[in-house]
Amino acid sequence: MNPSFRGIIPPIVTPLRSRDELDQAGLERLIEHILAGGVHGLFVLGTTGEAPGLSYRLRRELIERTCRQVQGRVPVLVGITDTAFVEAVHLADFAAKAGAQALVLAPPYYFPNSQPELLEYVQQLAPELPLPLFLYNMPTHTKTIFEVETVRRAMEIPNIVGLKDSSANMVYFHRLIGLLPARPDWSLLIGPEELLAESVLLGGHGGVCGGANLQPRLYVDLYDACVTGQLDRARELHAQVMRISDTLYHVGRHGSAFLKAIKCSLHEIGVCDDFMAEPFHRFREEERARVRKALAELGIAALA
Amino acid sequence: MNPSFRGIIPPIVTPLRSRDELDQAGLERLIEHILAGGVHGLFVLGTTGEAPGLSYRLRRELIERTCRQVQGRVPVLVGITDTAFVEAVHLADFAAKAGAQALVLAPPYYFPNSQPELLEYVQQLAPELPLPLFLYNMPTHTKTIFEVETVRRAMEIPNIVGLKDSSANMVYFHRLIGLLPARPDWSLLIGPEELLAESVLLGGHGGVCGGANLQPRLYVDLYDACVTGQLDRARELHAQVMRISDTLYHVGRHGSAFLKAIKCSLHEIGVCDDFMAEPFHRFREEERARVRKALAELGIAALA
Amino acid sequence: MNPSFRGIIPPIVTPLRSRDELDQAGLERLIEHILAGGVHGLFVLGTTGEAPGLSYRLRRELIERTCRQVQGRVPVLVGITDTAFVEAVHLADFAAKAGAQALVLAPPYYFPNSQPELLEYVQQLAPELPLPLFLYNMPTHTKTIFEVETVRRAMEIPNIVGLKDSSANMVYFHRLIGLLPARPDWSLLIGPEELLAESVLLGGHGGVCGGANLQPRLYVDLYDACVTGQLDRARELHAQVMRISDTLYHVGRHGSAFLKAIKCSLHEIGVCDDFMAEPFHRFREEERARVRKALAELGIAALA
Amino acid sequence: MNPSFRGIIPPIVTPLRSRDELDQAGLERLIEHILAGGVHGLFVLGTTGEAPGLSYRLRRELIERTCRQVQGRVPVLVGITDTAFVEAVHLADFAAKAGAQALVLAPPYYFPNSQPELLEYVQQLAPELPLPLFLYNMPTHTKTIFEVETVRRAMEIPNIVGLKDSSANMVYFHRLIGLLPARPDWSLLIGPEELLAESVLLGGHGGVCGGANLQPRLYVDLYDACVTGQLDRARELHAQVMRISDTLYHVGRHGSAFLKAIKCSLHEIGVCDDFMAEPFHRFREEERARVRKALAELGIAALA
Repeated sequence: MNPSFRGIIPPIVTPLRSRDELDQAGLERLIEHILAGGVHGLFVLGTTGEAPGLSYRLRRELIERTCRQVQGRVPVLVGITDTAFVEAVHLADFAAKAGAQALVLAPPYYFPNSQPELLEYVQQLAPELPLPLFLYNMPTHTKTIFEVETVRRAMEIPNIVGLKDSSANMVYFHRLIGLLPARPDWSLLIGPEELLAESVLLGGHGGVCGGANLQPRLYVDLYDACVTGQLDRARELHAQVMRISDTLYHVGRHGSAFLKAIKCSLHEIGVCDDFMAEPFHRFREEERARVRKALAELGIAALA
Repeated sequence: MNPSFRGIIPPIVTPLRSRDELDQAGLERLIEHILAGGVHGLFVLGTTGEAPGLSYRLRRELIERTCRQVQGRVPVLVGITDTAFVEAVHLADFAAKAGAQALVLAPPYYFPNSQPELLEYVQQLAPELPLPLFLYNMPTHTKTIFEVETVRRAMEIPNIVGLKDSSANMVYFHRLIGLLPARPDWSLLIGPEELLAESVLLGGHGGVCGGANLQPRLYVDLYDACVTGQLDRARELHAQVMRISDTLYHVGRHGSAFLKAIKCSLHEIGVCDDFMAEPFHRFREEERARVRKALAELGIAALA
Repeated sequence: MNPSFRGIIPPIVTPLRSRDELDQAGLERLIEHILAGGVHGLFVLGTTGEAPGLSYRLRRELIERTCRQVQGRVPVLVGITDTAFVEAVHLADFAAKAGAQALVLAPPYYFPNSQPELLEYVQQLAPELPLPLFLYNMPTHTKTIFEVETVRRAMEIPNIVGLKDSSANMVYFHRLIGLLPARPDWSLLIGPEELLAESVLLGGHGGVCGGANLQPRLYVDLYDACVTGQLDRARELHAQVMRISDTLYHVGRHGSAFLKAIKCSLHEIGVCDDFMAEPFHRFREEERARVRKALAELGIAALA
Repeated sequence: MNPSFRGIIPPIVTPLRSRDELDQAGLERLIEHILAGGVHGLFVLGTTGEAPGLSYRLRRELIERTCRQVQGRVPVLVGITDTAFVEAVHLADFAAKAGAQALVLAPPYYFPNSQPELLEYVQQLAPELPLPLFLYNMPTHTKTIFEVETVRRAMEIPNIVGLKDSSANMVYFHRLIGLLPARPDWSLLIGPEELLAESVLLGGHGGVCGGANLQPRLYVDLYDACVTGQLDRARELHAQVMRISDTLYHVGRHGSAFLKAIKCSLHEIGVCDDFMAEPFHRFREEERARVRKALAELGIAALA
């Protein structure tokens, strides 16, 4: 009864050629680049994947191509977050047929939900889904948090198997860890990679690290060091993670700086196109130059 | 060069039988009930219409049936707000073919946008749309405000013809009025009906009043009193609007109280079903009893 | 049983020579300048008066000099907002002895209070005060709002005689107007001068307008036009108020832009020094030049 | 050049008999109780000490009595946070004369400051202070955060020697750790005790743990385990800290629940009175019973 999902499960970016066209070759290279780093799963259609900005047609194409490319080497998790219940179910059904292993769901994010409404929503949706479900706590984008008591109640639903917490609130995360004895099969995953070390050192099961699109091995190594209690090595690798965060993720000025920097870096090292869906736009030349400089300083080289 | 859109343009609720099924007869009764009140337009697929919670199939059915029922008696405005650019364009094209007169767009609402990103988004989207466009300022739900300077720049785009402001920030609204000399054809409409009187008294062009689903004539009369400068009558009708707000809209406890109360009231007076799309749920019996009591006190009677 | 406090009651700036030294001559000129505009009262030690940034010694000196200068020509209201109950009572006692007519109190503003705590606080404090008390709703600075139900309960306390609302939320203000029948002696005053017209047109009793430090007559005239229902004149004067707001109050970049612009303008027209208590700093030369330009465009001339 | 301040420095509660009267005997017992736990310093007049709610007279009495009781056994840090620059300097001077070792300063908390204003404020204040200064990051109560770049600039000021971070934002805390090479004498202390383990494991210097009023030894042991890299023991003690947080600190409903629970518990185990300064009120009997139950379950016994 250990958690089935643990380790590093990167939220992959969505390589695009234009607004409604996948960069197919880039997607294949990206998947192989990440898998070569020893990751434990892949998460498509998350925040880092710009899911809400993509057409439903493109979302389905992405699911299909990803599952086909991965071929079962690691589990594929698919984001089905949607403001419309019906559309979330449609996408879940599609993902199951395409061969995905699990689903990920943040609260419906237009209306500010109350906790009773949110709990009822999850209670009604989960039974209609063909795959195990992760909750996704992402209050900066959805406005609504999964409060601790709501998570406790959601643990009573059998096919909910874990939670990904991107709140960056470690007090909250530790309180969730306190709920785990009721569901030893549950996985608690952390969103912000800057918090991977402490979350795993103190009882979390892994991370959904955006930076693992770029440097998958670094996050896998950090996870391993934390799981095996190698504190000095964990501190050293955590410091590397912080250097990436302090330089690369602060190139841009807006809330989307992180996303743009990851995609720009992937383009610079030859993995995939860095086109972004609206409302975003890839970095202009000034920021690209700063990204190149940061990559050089960080020792992140182009693919061979 | 006067604004083409002015007066009371109710954001109609979406009558539902179940999660993905329209209450077709209810929709027809609702439209006739509202039009009988002398309103100047209809707005479908807004916040009051629970648009983000509906499947795309149902959104299209609603647009089609509404346009067919209205038959050009008043303009129909269609909400196309979407996190995905491509889906917003698809819905806009559908609305144009169905016979709608204008579109309404809030910022894409998952990612917190910066103002340059938001402006660029509008600059790229507007030219792809087949109909005149209203911007929709709704920061509690979209996180992003259309700042005054962004609106000033958006006024340079010819097929943007107005803005609906639901921020409830009258300082902001007055600053927008100050921009109107540059586009005398623009319409500034107010969202919260509690602010209809002052916005029209001081230069606004009308309101998108949710309460007009229920009492269309009241809001039309208040608009007329303000436009014609009948201050005493305006105060009296404004006080009636406040009584509805103070009683009916405070029956429920959550952020969705307003929506639930309107839909419940419409059911009580025999207009349409009050099923609600997730994450909401219609009022339970306790709240229904309080709605009935409020309707009786307000003198709002069942349809003949 | 009409409200005793109505009309324009400017929140006067605190003229300073240095961190802990009043500009005494400037204070006298400022008071005479404002009284010459026909205002109905003066409010010292409000937000515009930088009260929280002043030493208690200087606050007392300011109260004393203001009361002495005014000599009963209009009522003097004194802000006693404090995080410490005991210090608020001390200042209230001092104000009463100095000859003030009323006190003004925002919630204690370090800890985020709950509504029951806030109500209890007011219930315990009011009986200890030697003068009538205004509540002061200022959520951007105090974090805590006086919710409508809390105000309703506070109305049961005899020596609370009104509320000044600086929330800029007119829906809230209209709801407070709905409470007035229970206390016909109460005064509802609006903070933001951009909302003076509508608040008085629809039932409010006046405004605590920061701009009346500079142009007292304009706000008195606008108040009179609204009270007497001269709608065209009200619109014209309201437009002047908006022009001041749109130009002068947007010279600086930070939240304190309004304060700095008022003080800088008063210096430019020869009324008083524009030194500011920490954490603020008067405008540098670049902003001063823009203030001078705005004053010229607005036709605001130096004192004769 | 190691940090002079490290380890557990509890923010002591202020034992009160009534609104403006210290519980002197309780204060002595509290100090001895805490020192017996092996702590590395004491912090008076922090948030946990209800500083902003106390009269200045009482603040001075508390400083004097604390320094006299401690007699140099550990350093005493004194909070001087104030909205008025002049009052902060006065209190700092008093603290130095009374024998305190350092000062603690959060941003002035009425006006929302900008970062340039905040930096300038610190640059002007620090040189006027007679003792080393800690910055105190506490955005929920002061609205203004010390942004990373502002901290970097503040590090250039010699008598600023550290920062206490109560933001509960560990990404921010890790970024501050990245600044330490420039000032190896600086101390980074964490506020929320739920984050003590990870902050010390990954480079922080200690914690200002409110719970150490009650159980000082627990936090000292956890700090020691983290400093010496005893990971299993750290996990076990961290779990105890979380159990206290999950039970005791969630007895009350409001934002002040933590404070009230600590004070109530200290009363229950015979340390000091639990009177609270306005706007708070000690727990009523219902909550007291729940506190007693929690203390029993946690094995926290009355003083011998």
